[in-house]
Amino acid sequence: MDLMDRFRQGDRRALARLITHVENGTPVGRAAMRELYGATGRGRSIGVTGPPGTGKSTLVDQLASVFRKEGLRIAIVCVDPSSPFTGGAILADRVRMRHLQDDPEVFIRSMASRGALGGLSRATGSVLKVLDAFGFDVILLETVGVGQGEVEVVREAETCLVIEVPGLGDGIQAIKAGILEIGHVFVVNKSDNPGADRVAEQILTMLSLNPVPPPWQPPVVQTVATKGAGVEDLARQVRRHWEHLDAQNLRREHLGRRRIADLAEILKCRALGAASQRVLSRPEYSELRRKVELGQMDPYEAADRLLPFDGIEEWRLP
Amino acid sequence: MDLMDRFRQGDRRALARLITHVENGTPVGRAAMRELYGATGRGRSIGVTGPPGTGKSTLVDQLASVFRKEGLRIAIVCVDPSSPFTGGAILADRVRMRHLQDDPEVFIRSMASRGALGGLSRATGSVLKVLDAFGFDVILLETVGVGQGEVEVVREAETCLVIEVPGLGDGIQAIKAGILEIGHVFVVNKSDNPGADRVAEQILTMLSLNPVPPPWQPPVVQTVATKGAGVEDLARQVRRHWEHLDAQNLRREHLGRRRIADLAEILKCRALGAASQRVLSRPEYSELRRKVELGQMDPYEAADRLLPFDGIEEWRLP
Repeated sequence: MDLMDRFRQGDRRALARLITHVENGTPVGRAAMRELYGATGRGRSIGVTGPPGTGKSTLVDQLASVFRKEGLRIAIVCVDPSSPFTGGAILADRVRMRHLQDDPEVFIRSMASRGALGGLSRATGSVLKVLDAFGFDVILLETVGVGQGEVEVVREAETCLVIEVPGLGDGIQAIKAGILEIGHVFVVNKSDNPGADRVAEQILTMLSLNPVPPPWQPPVVQTVATKGAGVEDLARQVRRHWEHLDAQNLRREHLGRRRIADLAEILKCRALGAASQRVLSRPEYSELRRKVELGQMDPYEAADRLLPFDGIEEWRLP
Repeated sequence: MDLMDRFRQGDRRALARLITHVENGTPVGRAAMRELYGATGRGRSIGVTGPPGTGKSTLVDQLASVFRKEGLRIAIVCVDPSSPFTGGAILADRVRMRHLQDDPEVFIRSMASRGALGGLSRATGSVLKVLDAFGFDVILLETVGVGQGEVEVVREAETCLVIEVPGLGDGIQAIKAGILEIGHVFVVNKSDNPGADRVAEQILTMLSLNPVPPPWQPPVVQTVATKGAGVEDLARQVRRHWEHLDAQNLRREHLGRRRIADLAEILKCRALGAASQRVLSRPEYSELRRKVELGQMDPYEAADRLLPFDGIEEWRLP
C-alpha cells in the first residue's frame, strides 16, 4: 500500500514519513501537498512564542493536556529558527510530558531551520497543512527564541500566544515590543514569581498604546505552567479567540489570504525553476559565471546575456 | 548636476540619498547599483553581533575611533532585523560618540527591516557596496540582537565579531551556540565584571570542539568598551584577520562567491519580475485568484493554468 493510502487511513508512521518528504521538498512531498490541499482548512493552529526560559514547552504541554481532556486530537510542532548551525540540537533537549508522548492522539514533531529562513516558515506552513489534513483538531506550533524568524513562523498560525515572565529586565522587554502586534493572547507564566502583576500591567499598557483599537482586545492570562495553574483559563481565552474569528468571518478571510499566499508561492517556485532551467541550458553559462567570479564582467552584464529582461525586476502580483 | 555625479565627487548628501534609493529599490537605486558595481571590492567590512546589552554600539564606536586615528575612512551601518513592526525605533535610541558624529570622514547610517528578512540582508549587501564604492576603507556593520536574521546580515561582512559579556546565564549561552561558527574574532566586553575569564574560556572550549580546525583560529579578546580598554588589541586582531584573508587568497574567494551570489540574485529578481508580468497579463488571473481565495479551486490547479511548468520547481543554479 502506498504512503498516501496509509496516510489517509490514519497511519502515524506514514504521517511522519510524509512530513519528512514535505520538509525536504522531495517529489513525493510535492505531489502529496497537491493531493492534500483540498483536505486542509479544518484544524485550528496556535502559535506560541516568547524568549528562552519562559517555560513555553511546559505551557504547550499543559495546554495540550487540557484540550486532550476535551477529546481533541493534538499535534505539537516545535520549530527552532534561531539556530541555523546547530541544526536543532536544542530541540532534542526538550522533554515533553510523558502522558502526551504515550497518547496515540497526540503527535509531536521537531523542525530545525536547515537552510534559509523563508524556507523554514514555508516548510512550517506545509507541515501544518499535512497535520491538518491528517485530522488533528489543534496544532500547537512552538518556537524557540524571539526574533523575526519566530515572528514569521508564528504568523503561519491563526491564534498566537506570546509568553512573558517576570524578571527578564526592561531592556529586553523593550526589544520585544515588536512582537506585541502579533499576539492574540498574552501569557505571564511563572506568575508565582514577584513582579507578575507588573509585567501583566506593562503588557496591557503597551497594548493600549495601539492607536487603532483592534476588533479583538488581547487578554493577558497569568499562569504557573509547572503546576498547571491558569492553564484552563488560557484554554478558555484561546477558545474565545476561535469564536471571535468565526463570528467575524475572520477565519474565512485568514484562510483566503493563506490560499492566495500559497498560489503566489507556487508561482514563484515555478518561475525560479523555469528560469534556472533556462539559464543552465545556455552553453555560455559556465564561462560567464567564471568571468563574474573573477571580476572580469559585472553580474548585471552577465544577467543581460543570460536572462534579458527590461521590466520591473521584482515579484509584484497583487 | 545629477546624483551620481555628486556621489562620485564625494558629496555625502548624495551618498545618503543614494542609499535611500537603494534601500527602497527605486529605479534610480537599481541603475546606481549597476553603475557602481565595478568600483566595489576595496573596502573592508566588519560585522558585529551579540545579544542586547553587550555594549555593541560603544564597542563599534571605540573600534571606529582607533581606525580613524590610523587615518582610515569609516562607515557605520546599524541594522535591526529583529524588529519588523517597530520599524527600527530602537535604533534611534542609540547615541553614537559625539566626535564620530562630527567627523566628516565618518558616515553613520541606520537600517530597519521593513519587509522580509531576505530583503534586509539583500539591502544590507547593496548598502555595503554603495559605501565601498564611495571610498570608505572600513565599513562596520552592527546588528541588534542575536538570531538568524542577524546571522544572515552579518554574513554580508568579511570579518565577523561576536560580542559576549559575563553574567548572561548559561541557558542563553547555549542558544547562542549557533553563532559560534560565524565569528572570526570573539570579544568578551565588560570584562571588568566578574566571570569574564570564564566566559572567554567557555568560548575557547566551544571553539575547540569544532572537529575540523579551520585555517583561522578565532582569538578571544577582552575589552571594557566604555573605557576603551582592550580596543586597540581588538583592532590588531581584526587586522590580523585581514592579513590572513589576503595571504590565503580568501578575500579573493570571498569576493568571487559574493559576485556569483549577486549574479544569482539579479537573475532571480528578473525571473520573478518576468513571471509576475506574464501572470498579470493573463485576463483570467483575477478570476482564478478569486476562486483560490474562496477555496473553489486549489492553488496548484490555478498555477497550472497561469504558469504551466513541469520541471523542478526551485532555484537550482550551481
